[in-house]
Amino acid sequence: MEKLKKKKIIWTKKDLLGLEDLSKEEIKLILETAESFKEISERTIKKVPTLRGKTIAHLFLEPSTRTRVSFELAAKRLSADTIGISGTSSSILKGETLRDTAQNIEAMKVDMIILRHSASGAAHKLAKEVSSGLINAGDGFHEHPTQALLDMFTIKQKLGKIEGLNVSIIGDIAHSRVARSNIIGLNKLGAKVTVCGPKSLMPLKIEQMGCKVTYSLKEALKGADAINVLRLQKERQKRGLLPTIREYVEEYGVTIPKIDKYAKKNIVIMHPGPINRGIEMSQEVADDPRSVILEQVTNGIAVRMAVMFLLSHYKGK
Amino acid sequence: MEKLKKKKIIWTKKDLLGLEDLSKEEIKLILETAESFKEISERTIKKVPTLRGKTIAHLFLEPSTRTRVSFELAAKRLSADTIGISGTSSSILKGETLRDTAQNIEAMKVDMIILRHSASGAAHKLAKEVSSGLINAGDGFHEHPTQALLDMFTIKQKLGKIEGLNVSIIGDIAHSRVARSNIIGLNKLGAKVTVCGPKSLMPLKIEQMGCKVTYSLKEALKGADAINVLRLQKERQKRGLLPTIREYVEEYGVTIPKIDKYAKKNIVIMHPGPINRGIEMSQEVADDPRSVILEQVTNGIAVRMAVMFLLSHYKGK
Amino acid sequence: MEKLKKKKIIWTKKDLLGLEDLSKEEIKLILETAESFKEISERTIKKVPTLRGKTIAHLFLEPSTRTRVSFELAAKRLSADTIGISGTSSSILKGETLRDTAQNIEAMKVDMIILRHSASGAAHKLAKEVSSGLINAGDGFHEHPTQALLDMFTIKQKLGKIEGLNVSIIGDIAHSRVARSNIIGLNKLGAKVTVCGPKSLMPLKIEQMGCKVTYSLKEALKGADAINVLRLQKERQKRGLLPTIREYVEEYGVTIPKIDKYAKKNIVIMHPGPINRGIEMSQEVADDPRSVILEQVTNGIAVRMAVMFLLSHYKGK
Repeated sequence: MEKLKKKKIIWTKKDLLGLEDLSKEEIKLILETAESFKEISERTIKKVPTLRGKTIAHLFLEPSTRTRVSFELAAKRLSADTIGISGTSSSILKGETLRDTAQNIEAMKVDMIILRHSASGAAHKLAKEVSSGLINAGDGFHEHPTQALLDMFTIKQKLGKIEGLNVSIIGDIAHSRVARSNIIGLNKLGAKVTVCGPKSLMPLKIEQMGCKVTYSLKEALKGADAINVLRLQKERQKRGLLPTIREYVEEYGVTIPKIDKYAKKNIVIMHPGPINRGIEMSQEVADDPRSVILEQVTNGIAVRMAVMFLLSHYKGK
Repeated sequence: MEKLKKKKIIWTKKDLLGLEDLSKEEIKLILETAESFKEISERTIKKVPTLRGKTIAHLFLEPSTRTRVSFELAAKRLSADTIGISGTSSSILKGETLRDTAQNIEAMKVDMIILRHSASGAAHKLAKEVSSGLINAGDGFHEHPTQALLDMFTIKQKLGKIEGLNVSIIGDIAHSRVARSNIIGLNKLGAKVTVCGPKSLMPLKIEQMGCKVTYSLKEALKGADAINVLRLQKERQKRGLLPTIREYVEEYGVTIPKIDKYAKKNIVIMHPGPINRGIEMSQEVADDPRSVILEQVTNGIAVRMAVMFLLSHYKGK
Repeated sequence: MEKLKKKKIIWTKKDLLGLEDLSKEEIKLILETAESFKEISERTIKKVPTLRGKTIAHLFLEPSTRTRVSFELAAKRLSADTIGISGTSSSILKGETLRDTAQNIEAMKVDMIILRHSASGAAHKLAKEVSSGLINAGDGFHEHPTQALLDMFTIKQKLGKIEGLNVSIIGDIAHSRVARSNIIGLNKLGAKVTVCGPKSLMPLKIEQMGCKVTYSLKEALKGADAINVLRLQKERQKRGLLPTIREYVEEYGVTIPKIDKYAKKNIVIMHPGPINRGIEMSQEVADDPRSVILEQVTNGIAVRMAVMFLLSHYKGK
């Protein structure tokens, strides 16, 4: 924090909509800033006056507890006032377009909006309508930038760097905004990304995003410095995208024997949570010393504090 | 704010239940006080310590996001602690009368209660049971005093005065607490009020409240300095109170051509929100420069801060 | 408060899980500490900086408004930041074990968790998994320690002591965590406890907990210094545990005539709320001057502030 105070922060973006929109330097600045904020959550008094007197609205129009709580704690540890608006059935939306909602929130002189929405592109659309800063907390199958930032922050804390590393993302790539944001961010920082999953859950032409594609878990584990295992939505099977859960577990479930057989000894194991233990990852893997899943949760608050802090330095066009 | 500090505030009411209960002078004091508070929401640090250490309970027993958020932000910008109690199914109500609920909240040493309730008269009933200050945030078809106060505040900001102005309220007068509170308040401040809507949505003997009645939108627009267009609840049609929505739009929907043809050039256009665009008001009207709908939202926070501030000056009987 | 500051607090428990786990001295320390905190809620500024910068998560996985609001106000009056997680359907639980949830909350560097859960033993289980302090806000039919503490606090405030008093608990003993915690706590402090209710709602071998059992309300009232009348869940009747509600009211409903006939003149009448007026207790009893039901609500906040304060003095093993 002391270091942060002395530094002159230059930040030129009103919003954090996706890693697509950020430069390598901007991503690095977020990760460095997060280091200073991580230290705050370790203190006895976990609070700084950085955003005192600012209002942050948490507009969660898709169910989420984990991400909402992380953003809310980040805002509170920066001393911001928070206001929660959740549920698609909320009357602020009755007969209203997303634009109406946005303009109303802005009219209440809210400084920042955290938006989770089930439609891809919702965050970009809303950001254009308001002068308040906007952070995308997940939009459809599109992006979830703070999740990817916390994943990269965690890799960097564990392995000291990101450039040149091999990172494999395993699971339902097609329906994962976490996968998309990670591919984009890791590429920008110079990591080599492999995506792995069954063909039915692999988007067409995904390699055009700049990643290697494999349908073999063995290939994904071999040489990987870190893996990011995605949650399998059981609904996928009902929609005919998967033969059976049992087959998925057999082919793509990450287990200790598979890691022992194919992976580097000190591989970093990540998962965005919540885990389906015994499906995409075994109980033993989740609790293995190489698993950094709970550190990801801790880091999520630091990364979100950093993003809120940086956006508050935006001076307008 | 500085002006406010120097002034000796005299306020003799424990509650704000309806504009019916307020004198002309009390309404004027609220509007003047709101001017000082409006400036706070424009600051970088949108917070004053006025109600630090006070607790405000938001008891919303009818769905509402917009009004709840406005009251909650008002409380937070005054540094009060807020506690939210919502939903008719809440266990505080299980097997309890409203009186039990009130007494329980009071026993928790809450300083102020914001009540929204689906029953007309609920606020008056509750206020008698508790020594905490109570603000009516809408009770059935009865009153919604802070909405009318913010409407009047907005007119005054736009036109410099209220006395002598012609204000038309257009739409479902029968089911509107907003209409009732506006008629009462505008009358007290010396405006001339016209109400306009189809006969089936016009209460019997409404003219006894001191307003002119018309069933013609043309009449309502002619000579009006400001119009307040009410949201049409589509449920009304199902209940047989309206022939078709299409006919309503044709007869009472406010459009630019109708305004151009009948209204004063600089008419002030208001709506309590949320808007059914294309029904009671066209898209173009909502976004017209003469529309002050978003300013109403901004002003809502200032007016509610003013009311909370004034009630906190009540010294008991 | 001044007294509290001068005193050296020694507290050796990470959690408050049940009165079973506390010594007589620890219970007494909580009740004494609560006296200092009660005075804060009587002040104009109802806030002390005791837990500033601490985070308290309210994890309510069973519906509750009354207890949640009491804990939340307690936390806010101590200046802690609060975070609410409610509803069994919350996504933090989707596919997660209680252990996963706990570990996640802990990873967010939460200092204290308030847990309400429908399963007996949930609090003990969770407490073992986290280093954060945990307060049991009710677990199944097991314990509800802060309710019993506030009941004892109220008795002590009214009668000056607890030792040697006769306290009768009346109603559905079998399904009551309030009864269990009261029996344990009152016994530890030297009161003589009688439990009273129909056989179908009386647990087998309850006398082994150290209380007298009676099936006669007359017996329970005779000689009692205080009675604690439990809420009757009407669902019990549907499950065949009660003949009819009418018969229950006749046999066990506490009324003024029954009190006049059998009880001490200055008996203290308690109820954990919410009351079914006219069922376990008549309207007149609830509103009688000897009823301390609303004082229990007030005291609840003081007792919960005291518990939070003491747990924050735990220094680790």
